[in-house]
Amino acid sequence: MATILTLAGDGIGPEIMTQAVDVLEAINKKFSLGLTLESGLIGGVAVDATGEPLPDETLARARAADAVLLGAVGGPKWDGIERSKRPERGLLKIRSELGLFANLRVAKLYPQLVNASSIKPEIISGLDLLIVRELTGGIYFGEPRGIRTLENGEQQGYNTMVYSTSEIQRIGKVAFELAQTRAQAAGTPAKVCSVDKANVLEVTELWKQTMIEMQQADYSDVALSHMYADNACMQLIKNPKQFDVMVTGNMFGDILSDEAAMLTGSIGMLPSASLDAAGKGMYEPCHGSAPDIAGQDKANPLATILSVAMMLRYTFKQEQAAQAIEQAVSDVLDDGLRTLDILDASEAALKQVGCKEMGQAVLAKL
Amino acid sequence: MATILTLAGDGIGPEIMTQAVDVLEAINKKFSLGLTLESGLIGGVAVDATGEPLPDETLARARAADAVLLGAVGGPKWDGIERSKRPERGLLKIRSELGLFANLRVAKLYPQLVNASSIKPEIISGLDLLIVRELTGGIYFGEPRGIRTLENGEQQGYNTMVYSTSEIQRIGKVAFELAQTRAQAAGTPAKVCSVDKANVLEVTELWKQTMIEMQQADYSDVALSHMYADNACMQLIKNPKQFDVMVTGNMFGDILSDEAAMLTGSIGMLPSASLDAAGKGMYEPCHGSAPDIAGQDKANPLATILSVAMMLRYTFKQEQAAQAIEQAVSDVLDDGLRTLDILDASEAALKQVGCKEMGQAVLAKL
Ligand SMILES: CC(C)[C@H](C(=O)O)[C@@H](O)C(=O)O
Ligand SMILES: CC(C)[C@H](C(=O)O)[C@@H](O)C(=O)O
Repeated sequence: MATILTLAGDGIGPEIMTQAVDVLEAINKKFSLGLTLESGLIGGVAVDATGEPLPDETLARARAADAVLLGAVGGPKWDGIERSKRPERGLLKIRSELGLFANLRVAKLYPQLVNASSIKPEIISGLDLLIVRELTGGIYFGEPRGIRTLENGEQQGYNTMVYSTSEIQRIGKVAFELAQTRAQAAGTPAKVCSVDKANVLEVTELWKQTMIEMQQADYSDVALSHMYADNACMQLIKNPKQFDVMVTGNMFGDILSDEAAMLTGSIGMLPSASLDAAGKGMYEPCHGSAPDIAGQDKANPLATILSVAMMLRYTFKQEQAAQAIEQAVSDVLDDGLRTLDILDASEAALKQVGCKEMGQAVLAKL
Repeated sequence: MATILTLAGDGIGPEIMTQAVDVLEAINKKFSLGLTLESGLIGGVAVDATGEPLPDETLARARAADAVLLGAVGGPKWDGIERSKRPERGLLKIRSELGLFANLRVAKLYPQLVNASSIKPEIISGLDLLIVRELTGGIYFGEPRGIRTLENGEQQGYNTMVYSTSEIQRIGKVAFELAQTRAQAAGTPAKVCSVDKANVLEVTELWKQTMIEMQQADYSDVALSHMYADNACMQLIKNPKQFDVMVTGNMFGDILSDEAAMLTGSIGMLPSASLDAAGKGMYEPCHGSAPDIAGQDKANPLATILSVAMMLRYTFKQEQAAQAIEQAVSDVLDDGLRTLDILDASEAALKQVGCKEMGQAVLAKL
């Protein structure tokens, strides 16, 4: 009997979560998975209800659960409040407290959506790359940090980007092993591109050196390359299909994974997993809380629904159930259903639908 | 009588510099500018000759000169040497020693090259955005930094991202004023987008706050917006024409300016300026030293030639001479001349040329 904690959060969080929960319940029944669902508070709604973006109760229940499904957090309503209480702090804290150091973000192009992208079809068709982002270290969590007043009276802000060898090794291991798995599945050679700024930052020099040593010691079957973050950002636009698995630190990973997602033109489609050392995880869409369209039944629930598939695959090892969801999503796209974010107005055969209709269409396919 | 120090550097540096110097000498004569040219060593060639990537003599002559024209530095030959002697350190040091805190990078689409981009023409046609990057602070220069051995025996790398109010103000001023100038020239409202990660990093919270205060106090005619770095990276792909001037710190600026350059599909076309408080500057192409094609007469000299135009405009206030160069570049593109990096093989009317032929063609137009 396994438990899943759902945390809908803010903005479009509740509406996309409702659809994802419907799908999760259906698949639970169909495959007799024996999953129990609970729900809890995080982000702005948690601030409003309890004063904290990650209430102790939520954290305790997240620890007790086998997996967490998250909607999205944040919005202008909470912009003005004290730094330590902002919705994002709840997200950062739950990642850190649960030790979810491995963030997997897939940038996959759905062939049905090739025209939704800003990028020319020939550059991105068939794109399927995985960004492995370190999620509980680096400049996001480094100390010292803060804003202080200097002797001359002016203010100074400071943060610390820091990584130790063991932190780099544990994320490197995830990247190398996922590259092996993907290569096996695709029948292609395994490759990892490690992204750093080793020509400027010592912390990433250690990163690069550690990746090289790991590859030599344990992953000689994986081709390892290195790229500076600025160049990686360019290469993702120029020729994204040169990459299979990219691995990088928290900050570069934040930027590059969003870039990779946008290449597909459909960030509303992309799920993510954040895993701890034992494979326990939190699953969430790559997109944010989109406060501008919240509550209007316009959001795309597919990224959250696909996050459920990732959860079934990585935490519960239910590959068949995961694929059933992915197939259902593909089917509704084949049927021409599109939420606003992935609608190509020039294609007359498409049907614009809302969040609920999209979710229920997936459900009907299961 | 003004002096320009040329620093060709490594890789394709010497060949592109030769062409740029020819253009500079021609324009010097044509407009009777009275400029004297000197040359010096920086980067790998300087390491080879003197043991230092920025020899004292070069620095002294750069200080004495009115402007510096740089080719590019770095290459695999110097990858293995001690950190403090690497070619890039010479570049970072000259920026810092000369106080060149304001890096201006223009991402402009040449209509003749619209097909060279990965991005769909309708997304980028007419693109002309300016990224103002802080260049002598932030995590590039912050202390403490290094790699140390922890008590448990493992290693730890660390760098510090730091900005004080006055550092933010001086780069903010450059951005707001350039936005005003551009708006005046274009007859459009002035706007600046400041890029930060204020939801996570305190140092960028101070950045954002300082920009807001400056706008309120002195630049109420400029519309100021804010974007998180990850979102900015996405928006540049989704809809780059929403931006006019973007301002950001050293690290985000490194990444975003390269991304913006790649949007145009022709990083071989893009010049940059790095200015001090008095407008004295160093000018260089946005691209790197491209060791893979060095010495093969394949490089595109136009970014360096356009850097000469920027120099004439910003340091020497010779707008007419600057425009003459820009017009000549546009003319050779109209004639169908293309170096390999900007060649669209599907267009039969184009003529592939080498570095030298391209440079001499520009010269002939002057
Ligand atoms: C909301 C924010 C704190 C978060 C991050 O920067 O990690 C988000 O951008 C993400 O990528 O999940
Ligand atoms: C070569 C490197 C140190 C440099 C930087 O990171 O600033 C380069 O990428 C640039 O943008 O000029």
